[in-house]
Amino acid sequence: MNIVIIGSGNVAAVLGRKFKAAGHTILQVYSRNASAASVLAYELDTESTNYKTMISRQADFYLIAVNDDAISEVTDNLLLPGKLVAHTAASVPMEVLKGVSEEYGVFYPLQSLRKEMVSLPDVPVFFDGNTDTAKRKLAELAHSISNEKVKEAGDEARLKLHVAAVMVSNFTNHLYALAADYCRKEGLDFKQLLPLIEETALRIKNVPPREAQTGPAVRHDGDTIQKHLELLQAYPHLKNIYVLLTESIQQG
Amino acid sequence: MNIVIIGSGNVAAVLGRKFKAAGHTILQVYSRNASAASVLAYELDTESTNYKTMISRQADFYLIAVNDDAISEVTDNLLLPGKLVAHTAASVPMEVLKGVSEEYGVFYPLQSLRKEMVSLPDVPVFFDGNTDTAKRKLAELAHSISNEKVKEAGDEARLKLHVAAVMVSNFTNHLYALAADYCRKEGLDFKQLLPLIEETALRIKNVPPREAQTGPAVRHDGDTIQKHLELLQAYPHLKNIYVLLTESIQQG
Repeated sequence: MNIVIIGSGNVAAVLGRKFKAAGHTILQVYSRNASAASVLAYELDTESTNYKTMISRQADFYLIAVNDDAISEVTDNLLLPGKLVAHTAASVPMEVLKGVSEEYGVFYPLQSLRKEMVSLPDVPVFFDGNTDTAKRKLAELAHSISNEKVKEAGDEARLKLHVAAVMVSNFTNHLYALAADYCRKEGLDFKQLLPLIEETALRIKNVPPREAQTGPAVRHDGDTIQKHLELLQAYPHLKNIYVLLTESIQQG
Repeated sequence: MNIVIIGSGNVAAVLGRKFKAAGHTILQVYSRNASAASVLAYELDTESTNYKTMISRQADFYLIAVNDDAISEVTDNLLLPGKLVAHTAASVPMEVLKGVSEEYGVFYPLQSLRKEMVSLPDVPVFFDGNTDTAKRKLAELAHSISNEKVKEAGDEARLKLHVAAVMVSNFTNHLYALAADYCRKEGLDFKQLLPLIEETALRIKNVPPREAQTGPAVRHDGDTIQKHLELLQAYPHLKNIYVLLTESIQQG
């Protein structure tokens, strides 16, 4: 397919690379941020332009990969009759695109994407479309870049998936960040925890997480928990989180 | 070395396998739980016995790999003059072993170990010893089974490492478990989140977790957070955790 990427952030960059690697042609990177657009366009062997100039009319598919709150700014000024248009946002209804074209949908990659990524990770894609044809085209496009699950998901299912994704990715990464801060302040090397982090994340491919639970909370090892809370006296914020999550584990 | 493993739980089983794979000889599995001991002994090509019978006196090294609160039960009845003895507990002082032998220490594997593991993960080892000789022997033993860091760590450093380990492993696994429950109740397939979980855990090898943070909390995307909290009305427990960790991310 011939594709215009609207946006030049993390999702735009990684999906752009995936499309290019799959043999699609990126006709243009269209973005508010001229500098980021020009960097991404160079990488994708294409042209870039910002919102002041014209968007290409030659593409089959227009991917709106901008922050949730910037989608309306894009759609307010965009008329693409006869073109397939989709946004990438989990938590934004498909219908925000109904004024842009007769054929529109959603192309939501369930992955944490960062433009600095050296290698492209596997990306499950959840799509939706306003017509059967839009759905079929978006499903084909998803299959062209993903070895993972490609599945239809309406507005509500996407929003729920996003909640679960926030818990397993954003919140776990925050626990990594808090532990890294703690290690730095206590003179410990956070990188010593990496094998443990990897094992914890990878074993749930084979063992349901509830059965894989280990540690003082699930053992109801009050002595150890008490020692840990004493150490965390100097870190009231960490201590709050420790108490809440320990209680949550013990509630089962 | 000739080794007696005291205990037959997760740590005993996995360290026993690692010692055997490294060419050491397991002389005996000595455990309160006769049935688990016999299964582990069979796997390690050795004998098992429970606390009512005699512990072998032929070994060079005795590893006490039992739950923290069972260590005193073991040490109360154990006299091993001239032998090297170590326990595996992060949060228990080394000195609990001083009545057992003149040469003792700690052999703490910083990893989440489960006897059901099919493949043995990398295991950083933190050791301590009451004499330079004990330290040297335990360091050598650690190097024989670990490609990861082997490092001396006193009681306080081990306790602090354990706090950090609880945060990055026990608490993250609990978030996985909560998300899996949520997905099941909402009719979503939790396994669709596995690529995201893997990417989140593995990328911090290269990017500090604070820089890797993504999601609505760090973007201060109040609209999305509000939609998520509305979805979580039916899950007050999840909602509490969502609010606390979102606020924690936004405090930076």
